[in-house]
Amino acid sequence: MINIAIMGHGVVGSGVAEILINHNDRIKNRVKQDINVKHILDLRDFNVAYSDKFTKDFNDILNDDSVSVVAEVMGGITPAYDFVKACLLKGKSVVTSNKELVAAKGAELIKIANEKNVSFLFEASVGGGIPVLRPISNCLAANEIDEIWGILNGTTNYILNKMIVDNMDFASALKLAQDLGFAERNPAADVEGHDACRKICILSALAYGKHVYPDQVKTEGITEITLDDVEYADNFGAVIKLIGHSKKVENGKIIASVRPTLVSRSHILAGVNGVFNAVVVNGDQTGEVAFYGKGAGKEATASAVVGDIIDCIKNQNNEKYLTWEDGSADYVDTRYSESSPLYVTLKGDDFAALKGEFSSVLSDICDSHIMNEYKNEIAFITKPNNESFVKDKLTALKTVNSYKILHTMF
Amino acid sequence: MINIAIMGHGVVGSGVAEILINHNDRIKNRVKQDINVKHILDLRDFNVAYSDKFTKDFNDILNDDSVSVVAEVMGGITPAYDFVKACLLKGKSVVTSNKELVAAKGAELIKIANEKNVSFLFEASVGGGIPVLRPISNCLAANEIDEIWGILNGTTNYILNKMIVDNMDFASALKLAQDLGFAERNPAADVEGHDACRKICILSALAYGKHVYPDQVKTEGITEITLDDVEYADNFGAVIKLIGHSKKVENGKIIASVRPTLVSRSHILAGVNGVFNAVVVNGDQTGEVAFYGKGAGKEATASAVVGDIIDCIKNQNNEKYLTWEDGSADYVDTRYSESSPLYVTLKGDDFAALKGEFSSVLSDICDSHIMNEYKNEIAFITKPNNESFVKDKLTALKTVNSYKILHTMF
Repeated sequence: MINIAIMGHGVVGSGVAEILINHNDRIKNRVKQDINVKHILDLRDFNVAYSDKFTKDFNDILNDDSVSVVAEVMGGITPAYDFVKACLLKGKSVVTSNKELVAAKGAELIKIANEKNVSFLFEASVGGGIPVLRPISNCLAANEIDEIWGILNGTTNYILNKMIVDNMDFASALKLAQDLGFAERNPAADVEGHDACRKICILSALAYGKHVYPDQVKTEGITEITLDDVEYADNFGAVIKLIGHSKKVENGKIIASVRPTLVSRSHILAGVNGVFNAVVVNGDQTGEVAFYGKGAGKEATASAVVGDIIDCIKNQNNEKYLTWEDGSADYVDTRYSESSPLYVTLKGDDFAALKGEFSSVLSDICDSHIMNEYKNEIAFITKPNNESFVKDKLTALKTVNSYKILHTMF
Repeated sequence: MINIAIMGHGVVGSGVAEILINHNDRIKNRVKQDINVKHILDLRDFNVAYSDKFTKDFNDILNDDSVSVVAEVMGGITPAYDFVKACLLKGKSVVTSNKELVAAKGAELIKIANEKNVSFLFEASVGGGIPVLRPISNCLAANEIDEIWGILNGTTNYILNKMIVDNMDFASALKLAQDLGFAERNPAADVEGHDACRKICILSALAYGKHVYPDQVKTEGITEITLDDVEYADNFGAVIKLIGHSKKVENGKIIASVRPTLVSRSHILAGVNGVFNAVVVNGDQTGEVAFYGKGAGKEATASAVVGDIIDCIKNQNNEKYLTWEDGSADYVDTRYSESSPLYVTLKGDDFAALKGEFSSVLSDICDSHIMNEYKNEIAFITKPNNESFVKDKLTALKTVNSYKILHTMF
């Protein structure tokens, strides 16, 4: 008999409880042992069939030696970090859907888990119900992974999709997403890219073996994306997506960013719509491999947490292989800039003068362009170039009031 | 020290040998043990750096008790089946890329492996380098899977893609695929759907827990697909793909097929081009999850084989969970027909009469249609209907010389 505790009974936590209790036979079948949800930690009161399992005191879980697996689905760093650490130190396996916790403290918690020979698993922290972390660590074990990128946040993908398909502006699309429950009342974590940032940290740490901290990732949200950008992108054969990206560069360093990016319509990621997520992994042997599915939602995320619980139980007496080192200040090269095509828009009051300066100064780096006289705006795609080189050229222009640069995946 | 034998030194086998020998440090790191390729079985002679490892006698492998893991990459049933069975019975773990073998003998070989508590793994048999079998059995463990479908054969996807994008007819696209090495000189296994059939058998067995035999799967190839079909499909907002499909229906039975199918352009699978494969899995908790990547190729397939070897070594002393029952004659319901939209073309010598009969007899089941007077042909999409019902209607028509029905995934 395996006793399990669940910390947190919000959207994901109640989903985990429901799967473990309502589909108990299914889980028992998979692990070939009896499974029992013994404690559920939450400060709130719930009127559910399994009300007798609730506690408001973490020590009921920590000090119950019969509990061997704990699911942390509270979210946030405090008190989740202290609780998870205490459980691991007590020799309990922990699974979590908490991307903020893993992105901030993953290396430390993995180290403790390995020392105690228990599991610390977090499949649900990236891509909700999409299996992606375990396939990266298991199935791609024969590969050296050198690049990861993807659509890691369903809320922003939904908003951008509404802008692209329904010509809705950012504010209206955000409002709709909030009304439908796809975006929080305070949408900053999603629309400013912080959620995607945590996920690219976790993916990068797992793929390259060294922790990447959120503040090392150049993070931009989608709040500045206009319907004009969407239309220009379409003309350039692309759609705008919020892309988390990381890649190995020289000297064992990596680059990492979350940025609105023009993705070529011919790439499979251009077809990832609505709240769906997708992660592309580039291995030296497999080439490009992608994982796709709903990146959030109660059932999908809860099923990933339960998948981890099953894994903990199956591998209780087995050596744990999931591991990465602590990060370091200079591991992520924040100054490195790849040579790639860039999307640029320029605005100026005097459109004739802007056009003149554009063709005299920028024609050698411009690959294709759109002149929008109604908006006094020029949009263009550069030839493959270093971003800082392009920025220097743009800041030297005299007729430009403002400019915008987006990455591309062509 | 783990000693490994490789049976077969063709495209995949040489790839496996190269990864294990040239990237030995990488693999050692992953399994935390020394890895040694001890024997390579092949009747041919090879002039390679590791020529000393070759043998022409299977008994050198079978009777070498120091060999604990064997990679079977010969292909075909004979002698692969006898060799694999003998190795398992001797207590050696076996990994294979041989879809024909797994589709024909999987249940039996898994049973032997479980009895001997060794591994029998075959990730490379479906989707080449795409992790799909292990994610299905591990990460989706908390799910009940009720449907699987996908593009399971890269050769036919390449040919159809050439027809769609470059307006090349089937024969020319096949010739090009052969010239580029994407299709065999004898292309029957690919273009007639047998390769995809084996893969849907394996996927279904794993997902639903019971063996599905290739002769239980309704299998149609792409040889009858014309450029007109491609164009009609485009008008109906779809692309034609060769889709392997299986689904749970009533009474614990399933349906299984490989058929050319119209896939809506709005679905992510419509964007899977060239030799790429993609598998969609529908779980009751996760909803739709998809796996995408190169379905074939030396490095990709070899890396999946090596991933399985790593898994065998890591789990040597662990209980094995991969399992499914033997199949049965009535498990696959071959008469069951889903009610879904169908794509139909009708040809007749007297086009005016054909049009007349179409509108008088078929207008109630027709959702949208295209009249092609140049070819005396009508193409239409039915309202959701049972295929046998539609067929009965078509065979009763007096003005029709021939008709064609394709499935749809709208």
